[in-house]
Amino acid sequence: MKFNGRNIHVDPSAQVGLGVKLGDNVTVYPNVVIKDGAIICNDVVLGEPTSEFYSNSSYSNPQTIIGANSLIRSHAIIYAGVELGDNFSCGHRVTVREFTVMENCCRIGSYSDVQQRVSLGSYSWIHSGVFVPNQTKIGCHVMIYPHVIFTDDRTPPSDDLSAPIIRDFAQVGAHSTILPGVIVGRHTLVGAGSVVTKSVADFMCVVGNPADVKMDVRDIKLEDGSAAYPWPRRFSRGMPWCQEGFDNWLKGTKTRLE
Amino acid sequence: MKFNGRNIHVDPSAQVGLGVKLGDNVTVYPNVVIKDGAIICNDVVLGEPTSEFYSNSSYSNPQTIIGANSLIRSHAIIYAGVELGDNFSCGHRVTVREFTVMENCCRIGSYSDVQQRVSLGSYSWIHSGVFVPNQTKIGCHVMIYPHVIFTDDRTPPSDDLSAPIIRDFAQVGAHSTILPGVIVGRHTLVGAGSVVTKSVADFMCVVGNPADVKMDVRDIKLEDGSAAYPWPRRFSRGMPWCQEGFDNWLKGTKTRLE
Amino acid sequence: MKFNGRNIHVDPSAQVGLGVKLGDNVTVYPNVVIKDGAIICNDVVLGEPTSEFYSNSSYSNPQTIIGANSLIRSHAIIYAGVELGDNFSCGHRVTVREFTVMENCCRIGSYSDVQQRVSLGSYSWIHSGVFVPNQTKIGCHVMIYPHVIFTDDRTPPSDDLSAPIIRDFAQVGAHSTILPGVIVGRHTLVGAGSVVTKSVADFMCVVGNPADVKMDVRDIKLEDGSAAYPWPRRFSRGMPWCQEGFDNWLKGTKTRLE
Repeated sequence: MKFNGRNIHVDPSAQVGLGVKLGDNVTVYPNVVIKDGAIICNDVVLGEPTSEFYSNSSYSNPQTIIGANSLIRSHAIIYAGVELGDNFSCGHRVTVREFTVMENCCRIGSYSDVQQRVSLGSYSWIHSGVFVPNQTKIGCHVMIYPHVIFTDDRTPPSDDLSAPIIRDFAQVGAHSTILPGVIVGRHTLVGAGSVVTKSVADFMCVVGNPADVKMDVRDIKLEDGSAAYPWPRRFSRGMPWCQEGFDNWLKGTKTRLE
Repeated sequence: MKFNGRNIHVDPSAQVGLGVKLGDNVTVYPNVVIKDGAIICNDVVLGEPTSEFYSNSSYSNPQTIIGANSLIRSHAIIYAGVELGDNFSCGHRVTVREFTVMENCCRIGSYSDVQQRVSLGSYSWIHSGVFVPNQTKIGCHVMIYPHVIFTDDRTPPSDDLSAPIIRDFAQVGAHSTILPGVIVGRHTLVGAGSVVTKSVADFMCVVGNPADVKMDVRDIKLEDGSAAYPWPRRFSRGMPWCQEGFDNWLKGTKTRLE
Repeated sequence: MKFNGRNIHVDPSAQVGLGVKLGDNVTVYPNVVIKDGAIICNDVVLGEPTSEFYSNSSYSNPQTIIGANSLIRSHAIIYAGVELGDNFSCGHRVTVREFTVMENCCRIGSYSDVQQRVSLGSYSWIHSGVFVPNQTKIGCHVMIYPHVIFTDDRTPPSDDLSAPIIRDFAQVGAHSTILPGVIVGRHTLVGAGSVVTKSVADFMCVVGNPADVKMDVRDIKLEDGSAAYPWPRRFSRGMPWCQEGFDNWLKGTKTRLE
């Protein structure tokens, strides 16, 4: 059905691991390392040359790393210099710009546009249609919901940029906007459609435009009356604590939680 | 100019109707039915296998149906299990995920991302860049304007999801956000940029973040002093009442309006 | 690395200038003029036929012009009838619909969707994921940041449309929404996440939903205490005053500033 070997162009300098599958019309530019077991779907581009390629005749493509067992869906464009950890997966038509680094087990939704030199901690999930500007720092186990927009310029236009920092376990609701330099604390919940204009402490729930603190997330209850947050105590799908539970996992882990 | 027959791959199990046109680089996966007169533009993918394909070696592709006289513009990805009614049309780079069902005469704008098991009633139009999560229910003659974001999780992250319901004839303004479980009533107008946090009764106009009722839509006047709503009395392009007028059409129709 | 001449389809009626590079899988439809030195990356479509093509058997493709030294990144779709000035550049998967005209030195970010008969003045930059409806008028040296949405219908749905007008030097912050008929003044700054419901005078800074005037931009200071606005006095990268400075350039220019 897929992986028919049609019209694939892999630069001779690329290293393709064991069991890697390459879809039709895939392009792999120089100096890309695809680790074992990765699945690269149709029309994906790996190691897309940076803008310098067009102006510098002695350009050479920096090394790009695609983690083991990654699943990259069709039409994604992964720029040169990107490092994606193991078990990475993404939707269709994703763009990841040069020198962005993602740790293991990250996910990126369709149409998301991750700019240069972004860092994404392990087990963080960015959903569809998200815009992440240069040098944004996102921790581990963070979830960014659809069409969240991060910004980095306090006095546009300028070259004095200051991207947001999103700490471990934070949940950033759909369609919210995070202003330049804002730090979103650990376990924080940003409500959908909010405009976050100043930093938010750990464990706060903020909503609105401009976003205000509404409550401590630890006071949010599920319908059965139990505490909804910290969320890792009730949600473990795809997370490293899915076997032993969050509290046991925390004891055995050097975590950034504390 | 188009339809040169280059690099087209159609699975032998696919059924291609009379007068169907297939653009260059089109891929049709197993078990797709393309009804008569459909135009499938360049680089479109029909019957894209679901995620299960990558993990289940005995995967078989569910049936996909593309309605008669549909026009699917380039780079759209229609997943397996989708059913699109007759006269469907869409823009470029649309994604429609598995088991979503659209009735006749629906339209989807470029870059829109319609997730799984969504239902869309006849003559409903979704404009560009809209995100529609799993199981969202949208009625007939509904218009969703550009970059509207629907959400489905009250306590993110969770697997206890509750997508919005949008009733017949509703108008959801550009760039608005609809919170989980919200029901948007019939003939309702959601103003552009609103964040709708609770359900809205029929015929209401809501605006703001959070959205509040501003007025009854039947009190909104056009510049000439006539009533702007219910809109079907003054707008009929592409609608089934375009010949006889809305009120006559209503009399002859089992409608969901009343 | 790129420009291997694979699978390129150029209509014989197209005029391809000196030094033009065409990436793999590029399609050039009839009546396209590509001026000297333009770089057209992989999978780009130039002169995409309008909707009339599908219904009118005597359709002929209107002339499309791609300016000299343009850089069009992969998967962009430029419709027939578009005129792009010299030194145009754009990101990936951009759509520019028919009869839109851009003056010299414009830039469009990835995923942006520019509709029909839009006009964009010289040196204006539209960032990623922006939606620009039919007939929007954008001046010179304007910057539109990511995921700004312009709207054009006061009483949706209707065919009585009124797109916004954005005057020279305006800065429209990320994720903001501009309502129909709004005029954004010269040197105005719209804060990120704002919903602009009424016209804004020159030099105003507006923020919020609905957006209110917060201050005169000329009272915004940089960290060193100097005036941040008018921005051209401190930012010149890519602008025509980058050699001589803004005030000297103004003296020598018939400008729309005054």
